[in-house]
Amino acid sequence: MGDLYVGVDGGGSHTRARLRDASGRRLGEGRASGSNLELGIPVARAAVLAAIDGALREAGLGPQDYRRLHAGLALASAELPECYHAFLAEPLPFAEVRLTSDAFGACLGAFGGEEGAILIAGTGSVGLIYQGGRVRTCSGRGFPISDLGSGAWLGLRALQSALLSHDGILPPSVLATRLLHHFGGDQAQVVAWASHAIPADYGRFAPWVLEAAQDGDALAIALRGEAIAALSTLVGGLIQMGAPYIALLGGVGQALAGALTAQYPDHLVEPAADAMEGALLFIQHKELPCLHP
Amino acid sequence: MGDLYVGVDGGGSHTRARLRDASGRRLGEGRASGSNLELGIPVARAAVLAAIDGALREAGLGPQDYRRLHAGLALASAELPECYHAFLAEPLPFAEVRLTSDAFGACLGAFGGEEGAILIAGTGSVGLIYQGGRVRTCSGRGFPISDLGSGAWLGLRALQSALLSHDGILPPSVLATRLLHHFGGDQAQVVAWASHAIPADYGRFAPWVLEAAQDGDALAIALRGEAIAALSTLVGGLIQMGAPYIALLGGVGQALAGALTAQYPDHLVEPAADAMEGALLFIQHKELPCLHP
Repeated sequence: MGDLYVGVDGGGSHTRARLRDASGRRLGEGRASGSNLELGIPVARAAVLAAIDGALREAGLGPQDYRRLHAGLALASAELPECYHAFLAEPLPFAEVRLTSDAFGACLGAFGGEEGAILIAGTGSVGLIYQGGRVRTCSGRGFPISDLGSGAWLGLRALQSALLSHDGILPPSVLATRLLHHFGGDQAQVVAWASHAIPADYGRFAPWVLEAAQDGDALAIALRGEAIAALSTLVGGLIQMGAPYIALLGGVGQALAGALTAQYPDHLVEPAADAMEGALLFIQHKELPCLHP
Repeated sequence: MGDLYVGVDGGGSHTRARLRDASGRRLGEGRASGSNLELGIPVARAAVLAAIDGALREAGLGPQDYRRLHAGLALASAELPECYHAFLAEPLPFAEVRLTSDAFGACLGAFGGEEGAILIAGTGSVGLIYQGGRVRTCSGRGFPISDLGSGAWLGLRALQSALLSHDGILPPSVLATRLLHHFGGDQAQVVAWASHAIPADYGRFAPWVLEAAQDGDALAIALRGEAIAALSTLVGGLIQMGAPYIALLGGVGQALAGALTAQYPDHLVEPAADAMEGALLFIQHKELPCLHP
């Protein structure tokens, strides 16, 4: 009955766990709802346990194997000291637990535990540099004050532009027509919706922009250009801050990786592996820096 | 004891009234807090009365002269049918009352009652065209979904950029330093502030941008350029929609009038008079269109 290793990647809406044995053999995976620590420690703790239970189940194992488990947890908001300490104050029933942020987990996965940098552009956007044994982040403070080039930001720009097209100020556009049609063709419904929309609501329209841009819609192409410019500013900033290599992650980041790599061919690289692998590296390599030593 | 005419211009934070006699002689002015109809009908009604009372007082008159008064009211949100009808359902004690929106009042003032168009860029931004006896508006649906080029929008862009400068992603900037300093040099305070900031809060930083741009700060100049581009799109849209002449109003509009007039020398004109004069014209010329006939 040897040691088991589990890597957990937890964000706002999903938690994923991957189980390996001491030789590195993949035994199983599990999923659960979000474990961003800002959802509340009990919520995050339950989601982490549920995802790990799923991975154990797939491996033909169960709670009786908890004490064999070395768990690396890469959870959103673990970069906040109060969240980090509150989570670890309620220990899990495993042999060992080590906690870091989902962004650092993603960076470790992308660079196989070596130093590097990532730019995540999903619903939000955030840059992280791991260099000289130190972890720094930039941008990523939430929408609308930050997170430029993110899905939420792209969705907002699309709706702003769709309303201007509806008014006749911007030319007609397939994207604008689709967006207005989604709101029953009634601009007042867009306004009512916006009064209580959260970033994820805006972000849902980002794929609409990217799709319409591929179909040749001029407005969508212009908005995609704006997103590329915003992410290019962040990539350029990360390089300026000393990042040697940068992996682009997240749905929007992946979709725009081609255009950005053309701009920074010497700096942008493909991620080696995902954040679950990063979390596995984090529990196996104690020399990797702790965010709150 | 002849007829008296009062023109009232009411927005979200201020209400202003100007009193004239039948020969057009200016008798007095009064001020009160906001009378945007969305603040609630009783609130708006009280502010309108207070502003008119102030104008009567300055003229050596008082409530005994109410029945001599013909009141033209140009109040924000009167373009919304439900607000318009709710306000008029509780009549004022004057000889006559006629209600329209602050934007149409501003347009009538700017063009001396003739047809024309305005672009107001203050905390928000909105375009209005009065042409062929018909009034149409564009943009102006609130921040952040609309109101591009407005003070709120410019303030948001400034704070977004200040955070990127703080991170080292954008170059150092006097404007960025000033903004961070306002928040005690602590980016976390900006984030906390943003979580409950309303458009007027963002708009308060727009003059900081325009001032720093005049002082030659590169970031501020770039942001001013963005605002000019956004307002230029709106001006171009109004021309496209058939507006022959456009007056630029509002603090941001006035500040950027020079740059925009250089782009549209044949279309941008100085306003002839203010919205109180527009409201006076509205009560004196019954042929001027009612927003909700």
